Amino acid sequence: MTENVTQYLNENRERLLNKLKAFLEIPSVSTNSSNAKDVKEAAQFVESYLEEIGFTTVERIDTDGHPIVYGEWLEAEGAPTVLLYGHYDVQPADPLELWESDPFKPEVRNGRLFARGASDDKGQVFMHLAVFEAFMKTEGRLPVNVKVCIEGEEEVGSAHLYDVLDQHQDKFKADFCVISDSGMVASGQPTLLYGLKGFTGLEVTVYGPNRDLHSGLYGGAVKNPAMALSHLLASMKNEDEQVTVAGFYEDVEQLTDDERKLMNEAPGEAYETTVGVTETTPEKGFTAKEHTMARPTLEINGLFGGYQGEGTKTIIPSSATAKLTCRLVPGQDPEKIQDLLVKHLEDHTPKGTTLTITREPLSAKAYKVDPTHPLLQEAAKSYSDAFGKDAVFVRMGGSIPVVETIDQMYGIPVVLLGFGTPEDNLHSPNESFPLESYDKGNETLVRYWNAVATL
Amino acid sequence: MTENVTQYLNENRERLLNKLKAFLEIPSVSTNSSNAKDVKEAAQFVESYLEEIGFTTVERIDTDGHPIVYGEWLEAEGAPTVLLYGHYDVQPADPLELWESDPFKPEVRNGRLFARGASDDKGQVFMHLAVFEAFMKTEGRLPVNVKVCIEGEEEVGSAHLYDVLDQHQDKFKADFCVISDSGMVASGQPTLLYGLKGFTGLEVTVYGPNRDLHSGLYGGAVKNPAMALSHLLASMKNEDEQVTVAGFYEDVEQLTDDERKLMNEAPGEAYETTVGVTETTPEKGFTAKEHTMARPTLEINGLFGGYQGEGTKTIIPSSATAKLTCRLVPGQDPEKIQDLLVKHLEDHTPKGTTLTITREPLSAKAYKVDPTHPLLQEAAKSYSDAFGKDAVFVRMGGSIPVVETIDQMYGIPVVLLGFGTPEDNLHSPNESFPLESYDKGNETLVRYWNAVATL
Repeated sequence: MTENVTQYLNENRERLLNKLKAFLEIPSVSTNSSNAKDVKEAAQFVESYLEEIGFTTVERIDTDGHPIVYGEWLEAEGAPTVLLYGHYDVQPADPLELWESDPFKPEVRNGRLFARGASDDKGQVFMHLAVFEAFMKTEGRLPVNVKVCIEGEEEVGSAHLYDVLDQHQDKFKADFCVISDSGMVASGQPTLLYGLKGFTGLEVTVYGPNRDLHSGLYGGAVKNPAMALSHLLASMKNEDEQVTVAGFYEDVEQLTDDERKLMNEAPGEAYETTVGVTETTPEKGFTAKEHTMARPTLEINGLFGGYQGEGTKTIIPSSATAKLTCRLVPGQDPEKIQDLLVKHLEDHTPKGTTLTITREPLSAKAYKVDPTHPLLQEAAKSYSDAFGKDAVFVRMGGSIPVVETIDQMYGIPVVLLGFGTPEDNLHSPNESFPLESYDKGNETLVRYWNAVATL
Repeated sequence: MTENVTQYLNENRERLLNKLKAFLEIPSVSTNSSNAKDVKEAAQFVESYLEEIGFTTVERIDTDGHPIVYGEWLEAEGAPTVLLYGHYDVQPADPLELWESDPFKPEVRNGRLFARGASDDKGQVFMHLAVFEAFMKTEGRLPVNVKVCIEGEEEVGSAHLYDVLDQHQDKFKADFCVISDSGMVASGQPTLLYGLKGFTGLEVTVYGPNRDLHSGLYGGAVKNPAMALSHLLASMKNEDEQVTVAGFYEDVEQLTDDERKLMNEAPGEAYETTVGVTETTPEKGFTAKEHTMARPTLEINGLFGGYQGEGTKTIIPSSATAKLTCRLVPGQDPEKIQDLLVKHLEDHTPKGTTLTITREPLSAKAYKVDPTHPLLQEAAKSYSDAFGKDAVFVRMGGSIPVVETIDQMYGIPVVLLGFGTPEDNLHSPNESFPLESYDKGNETLVRYWNAVATL
C-alpha cells in the first residue's frame, strides 16, 4: 500500500520542492513586529495547503499574537488519532552579512536546501503536508485520523499556544502526538528523542548614571554599569561551567551510570568540524554529551552597553544589558529557577547601580518518555527501514515547550520524529536541510502512518 | 587698554555667536569615516577665520588623517610667544534619540548653547579666535605673539599631531602653551588645572564557535564567548574598584596628605543632581575626589556580543567584544600599562576561546605642572577678576595627550585655561556651554593676553 504513495512523492518531487521554496520565501520572523504581515502570510500558506489536501476542517485560530492553524481529517474509522504539531515561524536571519545566499531566497547547493526555516521548522512541517497530500491523491484517504496544529510563535516561546490548547481541549484531543522539529545525532543516523530540556530566561539591565559620561571626569566616582554587569554575570557561573546561583541544581534528577554510558556511546558531533572549536568545555565532572543532553545550562544570548561603533569613545555607559536563558532537566521547575536567578541578581546588585529585570514570559519543564513505548518503537522501525540504518534513542539539549504542555494536558505519548542534521545551522546564518533527509524522511512518514494505523 | 576690546566683543556679540553656531553646525565627527568631508569643512572654517582676523600666515597641514590648521601672528616685538592648541573635531553624537535638539543645529535654551562641540572644544577654540579678532579690530595688533595649532583628531587620539609637531619643531616653538579644552569644578568657579591623567586602551574580542549556535544543542559543549568575556572583564577589577591587573599600581606616584587634603577641600560635584547616581564608588581607601583627580582608572567604554534585538534569540554568540580605556596618573607609563593589560588578558584567556586584542594606537602620560608658576598665577588672577571669584587649582581625571607631548617636546609650561562646567554633558547627549562662560571667558582671555604681554 505504500508504494504508490512513495511513487507519487517521487513523481511530484520537483513541484513539491518548489512549493516548499515558496513557503520558505515568506520571512515569518515572529520576534520582529515589522514581520507581522509575513507571519500571517505563512499561516495563510499552511491553511491553503490543508484545504488543497482535503482536510475536512481548516481553521485559523486568532490570538493576541500570531495565529494558530488547525486542520482535521477524521475519517479513518477504527484507526488512532494523531495530533501533529509544528510551527511556521522562524528565527531572525541576522547577521545577514554572514549568509552565502539570501535567507529568504531558498537555494539548493551540494544536496542541501539553504533558507531560514529550511530545517527549523517549515521544512519539516512541509514534509508532513506533502505526505498527507500523497496519501489523499493516491489512496483517497489517510491511514490515521489527523489533527494538525501549526503555530506561529514557537521561536518567541509559544506565547499564546497554551491558552488556546487549554480553551480547546476537546478539539486538540488525540491518542498520541507527533512532532518533527528536531534532528538526528549525525547525518543519516535515524534518531528518536526521548527527552528534551526545559527552558526559562530573563533580561537584566544594569543602570548607572542617567547618561553616558566622560570617562576621565567621572571614572573613579561613578560605577561603570558594563563592569557591574560583568561582575554580575561572572557571579552566575564559574570557570568550571558550574552555575553558581544558589539552589540551581537542587532538584536536578541525577543521571544513572547506565544512562551516562548510553549517552557517551551515542554518535557524537565532531565540534571542530561542525562549529570550529578545538576544545569542549562541559560542566566539571561531566562529558560534553552528558552536559548537552542531560545537565542544565545557563547561557548569555546577548550582551550590550555603551559605544559599539568604529574607533574609541571614552565614556562610562549609562547602562548595560544581558539576555540570559537556561535549559533545564527533569526535576527542575522553570518558575522556581527563574525566581532563583532573579534573587541572585538582586542579592548581587553592585553598589551604585539599579537593576531592571524582565522575566521571559513563557517557560517549560523538561520532558522524558519511556523509549520502549510501542509508538516509539514503531517510529524507530519506520525510520530505520527508510534510512537503512538502526535508529538510536537519545536525549537532547533543546527545548520544545509544547511537548511538556501536551504531556501535562493530555497524558499522551509525544513522538519526536525529527529529520534535521547537526550541519543544519539552526538559529544561525546559512540554515539548510539535506534533501536526503527530505526524501528519506518522507518515506519514514509514509511507513509510520501505515504502521500505526493498526496499533 | 582692555575696555575697547571688551566693548567690541559686547557690540558684536550676536554676530559672533551666530558665527560660532555656523562652526557648530558642521558635524566634524573625526571617528566616523563617513564624516570626513565635514571634518575638512571645519578645518576650512578655522583657516578662513584666521585669515579674516589678520593672521600673517595660515596653513593647512595635511596628514594621512584629518588636517591640522596652523596660523601665526608674530608682530608683538618683545612680548612672549604663545602656542594656542585646540581641536575642531567632535565626539559622535549618538545616541541621537536622547538629544532634546539636533546636535548639529545649535540652539540657546536657559542661557546655554546646546550643540555637539559647544564645550568640547569648538566653543572654546572659537572664544580665542573671537578675542583675537577683537584685539585686531580695535588695537590693530595682539598683545602677544601667537601661534595657533588647531587639530582635527583629538577625539581619536590625535593620531597624526605628534608626528607633525615633531617634524615642525621650529614652527610650533613658543614660550608657553595655552589650551582651553577643560572646565571649572563648578559653574562660575574659576579653575586652573595643574594636573591631567594619562591615557591608554585596547579592544578585546573573545571568539568561540565559528557562528552563532543554538543554545540548546550546544549549551554544555561549547564555551559561551559572552560569559567568557564577563569572566575576563570581572578579573580585571574587583568590587572595591581596585584594578587587579598585576603591576597596574606599581609606578603610581603616591598622594601626599597635603594634596589629599587640598583635593577634598575643592568644591565637589553633586553627582545625584548632575548625573543621577545616589552613591559614588571610588577605589577602596580613597574618596571620589581623590580617585577622579589622582588615582588611575580602568573603564569599559562599550560591550557587545550576540543578539541585541527585540525578544529572545536562544543562541550562543560566536564572539563578544569590549572596548577598554585607562586614565593614568604621574609615574605610570602608558605603553607599560597597555602591555600589562594585554598580558593579563592573554594569561586569563578562558578555555575553548581565542582572543583578538587591538591596542589603542596612541596613548599619553599624565601631566603635572607647578601651580605657583607666574604664568599660572597670572591666569588665576585674570580668571578670578573676570568671574569675580577666587580661582582654585585642581587636578583632573581627563586626558589631554597633547599637553604631555608639548611638555616633553619643548619643556614649556602649559596653561590649562578651561571654561566648561560640570553640566556641559561632554561626550554625552545634550552637550552645551553656558553663555556666562562664553562672556566671562572672553573677558578672562582679554585680561590674560594683556597681563602676560609684559611677563
